[in-house]
Amino acid sequence: MKGDKTQIIEKITIIGGTHGNEYIGPYFLAKAGLAGIYQGNAIEVSTLLANPEAFLRARRFIDQDLNRSFSPPILTGTQDPYECRRAREIARHFSQNETGQHFIVDLHSTTANMGITLIVRDNEPLNLHTAAYVQKNIPEARILLSDIDHSQHHSLNNISPFGIVIEVGPTPNAVLRHDLFETTEKVVDLVVKFLTLSKTREEPRLPDEVAVFRFREKVPYPRNEQGELTAMIHKDLQDRDYRLLKTGQPIFMTLQGDEIRYSGEPGYPVFINEAAYYLEDTAFIITDKVTASLN
Amino acid sequence: MKGDKTQIIEKITIIGGTHGNEYIGPYFLAKAGLAGIYQGNAIEVSTLLANPEAFLRARRFIDQDLNRSFSPPILTGTQDPYECRRAREIARHFSQNETGQHFIVDLHSTTANMGITLIVRDNEPLNLHTAAYVQKNIPEARILLSDIDHSQHHSLNNISPFGIVIEVGPTPNAVLRHDLFETTEKVVDLVVKFLTLSKTREEPRLPDEVAVFRFREKVPYPRNEQGELTAMIHKDLQDRDYRLLKTGQPIFMTLQGDEIRYSGEPGYPVFINEAAYYLEDTAFIITDKVTASLN
Repeated sequence: MKGDKTQIIEKITIIGGTHGNEYIGPYFLAKAGLAGIYQGNAIEVSTLLANPEAFLRARRFIDQDLNRSFSPPILTGTQDPYECRRAREIARHFSQNETGQHFIVDLHSTTANMGITLIVRDNEPLNLHTAAYVQKNIPEARILLSDIDHSQHHSLNNISPFGIVIEVGPTPNAVLRHDLFETTEKVVDLVVKFLTLSKTREEPRLPDEVAVFRFREKVPYPRNEQGELTAMIHKDLQDRDYRLLKTGQPIFMTLQGDEIRYSGEPGYPVFINEAAYYLEDTAFIITDKVTASLN
Repeated sequence: MKGDKTQIIEKITIIGGTHGNEYIGPYFLAKAGLAGIYQGNAIEVSTLLANPEAFLRARRFIDQDLNRSFSPPILTGTQDPYECRRAREIARHFSQNETGQHFIVDLHSTTANMGITLIVRDNEPLNLHTAAYVQKNIPEARILLSDIDHSQHHSLNNISPFGIVIEVGPTPNAVLRHDLFETTEKVVDLVVKFLTLSKTREEPRLPDEVAVFRFREKVPYPRNEQGELTAMIHKDLQDRDYRLLKTGQPIFMTLQGDEIRYSGEPGYPVFINEAAYYLEDTAFIITDKVTASLN
């Protein structure tokens, strides 16, 4: 039976600015505040600007990536970097306000050509059900399923077992695109509607199964001994997120003028040439397209 | 007679990384170094990484915009911010190596949908001639003519009266796009070829006149009393750089949900939603399309 856990969602928190240079989230919160949206909703909806300092400076983070800072050592420690302190503040905020289960909607954007991507963890069926409902209404939305990888990242979403990450792109960082802003509003509306219907009436009818993309592995950039980049994403791969990458297709062009071809098993690349992932040495991530049951 | 001043160009310097998060320039220099390109060229071609610290940190600048730091007070002063020191170093480098006139090719990228843009100052005919030669070979390239505005900016290009700024877009910052990298290589090749031909043989034949876009004015973002943004570039204006903007067309969408319409004289907008210009409070720049004579 579907949705048997949905009764326990008592609160939805929409989070923006986990990365300070991804502008859609913070301005979504500003607009939501002005408009008083979701007031009187059957499930309480609140908002949180996760990294205000980074947002003010139009940077992804101040000292370290907040979305990698929700690890037990940081949450129980006394480390001084800004994002460590902020992670503890946010964790305290959620534990103090716990009046039932929280569902977290974390708003992101990407420089990669990923359209509307819904990232969910597979620990709770409700997460995938929520994404499936969005996809039912916006068929071009894609679902990225993360399992252990995502928790290794110690992302903000780990604050609660219930949640969804909305990634829209492509957009440069530190730019507010009206079209993607509207897209995000539409997706958030569907998430809130689904959770509210599931709690107050009955979980809306969903398909029996959905196609999802499951993280397989990161592909690093070619670098020299000094750690400097020696190649760039090949123009034949650029912007081809979610399109099958076959063994032997060019993936990099070196500064020497040589093509580097893909030697792995065929798969579906995502986060191709994402700006922030240069830091993490990820040129793109290969996923497998699989079918996930909703029953 | 055309090109009577071209004889004095003795050196070309290709500059990358004036803004550290515009990656095409620094990697162009890296590739040029590996390949030893332009060695033995009849005009000496050298390269300069303008803001190495900002490039290492994937930021536009460390303390202040280097491309606004070439002002007399900074160049003759002792101010400590990194870019002030760097501006003085670069100015010294050029004055010490002066063996004739320098032509400066400054490599940039933009988050705006500006394709290939050649920015030239109108003080020396050679600058516009060079741009016209590029456009003759790449018809989709556009020429932006700057006059007093550009020197008010105290840009790096002010180091010499001779030069061209190559802007390619759209691209996110801190991302290296292969296609725009190749475009930049092609444009630089044409610039070097033109200057070399002009010096060693005869300036190639150019049209009598070219269409250019001349800076008219900056259009600021709507903001509240706290200085916070209250609107975003309207989706009907986004990506429409160089397309005629008429009086009455929507240019902003406020967070309250209201459209703001353009009240100025018709013109051609450029740098629409450029990430770096949020800092300078420029939503876009209006230009006039005019005809410039090359005679």
